[in-house]
Amino acid sequence: MAHPTQVIAEAGKQELFVIREFDAPPELVFQAFSDPAILVQFFAPNQAIMTFDYADYRTGGAYRYTHTDLQDRILCTFKGIIHELTAPERIILTAELEGLPEPGHVILEAMLFEPLPGNRSKLIIHDVCLSVEDRDAMIRSGMEGGLAKIFNQLDDLLRKGF
Amino acid sequence: MAHPTQVIAEAGKQELFVIREFDAPPELVFQAFSDPAILVQFFAPNQAIMTFDYADYRTGGAYRYTHTDLQDRILCTFKGIIHELTAPERIILTAELEGLPEPGHVILEAMLFEPLPGNRSKLIIHDVCLSVEDRDAMIRSGMEGGLAKIFNQLDDLLRKGF
Repeated sequence: MAHPTQVIAEAGKQELFVIREFDAPPELVFQAFSDPAILVQFFAPNQAIMTFDYADYRTGGAYRYTHTDLQDRILCTFKGIIHELTAPERIILTAELEGLPEPGHVILEAMLFEPLPGNRSKLIIHDVCLSVEDRDAMIRSGMEGGLAKIFNQLDDLLRKGF
Repeated sequence: MAHPTQVIAEAGKQELFVIREFDAPPELVFQAFSDPAILVQFFAPNQAIMTFDYADYRTGGAYRYTHTDLQDRILCTFKGIIHELTAPERIILTAELEGLPEPGHVILEAMLFEPLPGNRSKLIIHDVCLSVEDRDAMIRSGMEGGLAKIFNQLDDLLRKGF
């Protein structure tokens, strides 16, 4: 049984929380979310291919990646900069979906990796948007289902080892 | 008469808006807020001295600056990264006050430079915090009075020219 992916998005707020437990310690889960070579192995749902244009995962670094489908059609491109990357506890970054009618719809994302008893961990993703509308659009995009699949893929990867 | 500095901070929200008009076109106001050599001339209230540790004002760049008083005592240090810098219309960056009991209280700031008739402009600063408490703490810190002084200093500088 996969662990549930919990999304908390209070009506009228410009933030949301995603909470997911993993059967691996924070060090490993943090590594998965901060190493581009590992990210491309799980961070795309529905058999999409993830490729980075650049991926400088450090405090002050930047990234840009694209998801393409099996026919090589671009599904989405995200870019952002990394405000803080502190192993194994915290990543704070910005994220922006490219190709919207107007630029500037940036998200501030804080990812916290917390230890749980039994060599397990809890990931808390805290997304803050520039508006309630941006937050609601994110939810309507099917984010929750996509993330649940991504996290399940990470479970598989953690079981196999990387 | 100085132009008023308007702060809009709705109760219970994690964002605020600062709006200020300038008697100069967006190109010049944008330049003032994106050139470290100009920033140090006006972006510190009450005769504080502003110094940059690093100031890479470009998309993907980063900055860190300190305000010190005339006795060389540190008043505050801010750091962040620049998600987007598009002349002369938009700067989107993160900002974090250093030295708080816990790190991670990051602000996402979007600065928009809009043209007004008569070679004038309007600056709209949109700050989004990770919590309502962070937003309220920012307001309690005296941000509004400090910004009003900073903007008045920029008026002087724009009159003199840079």
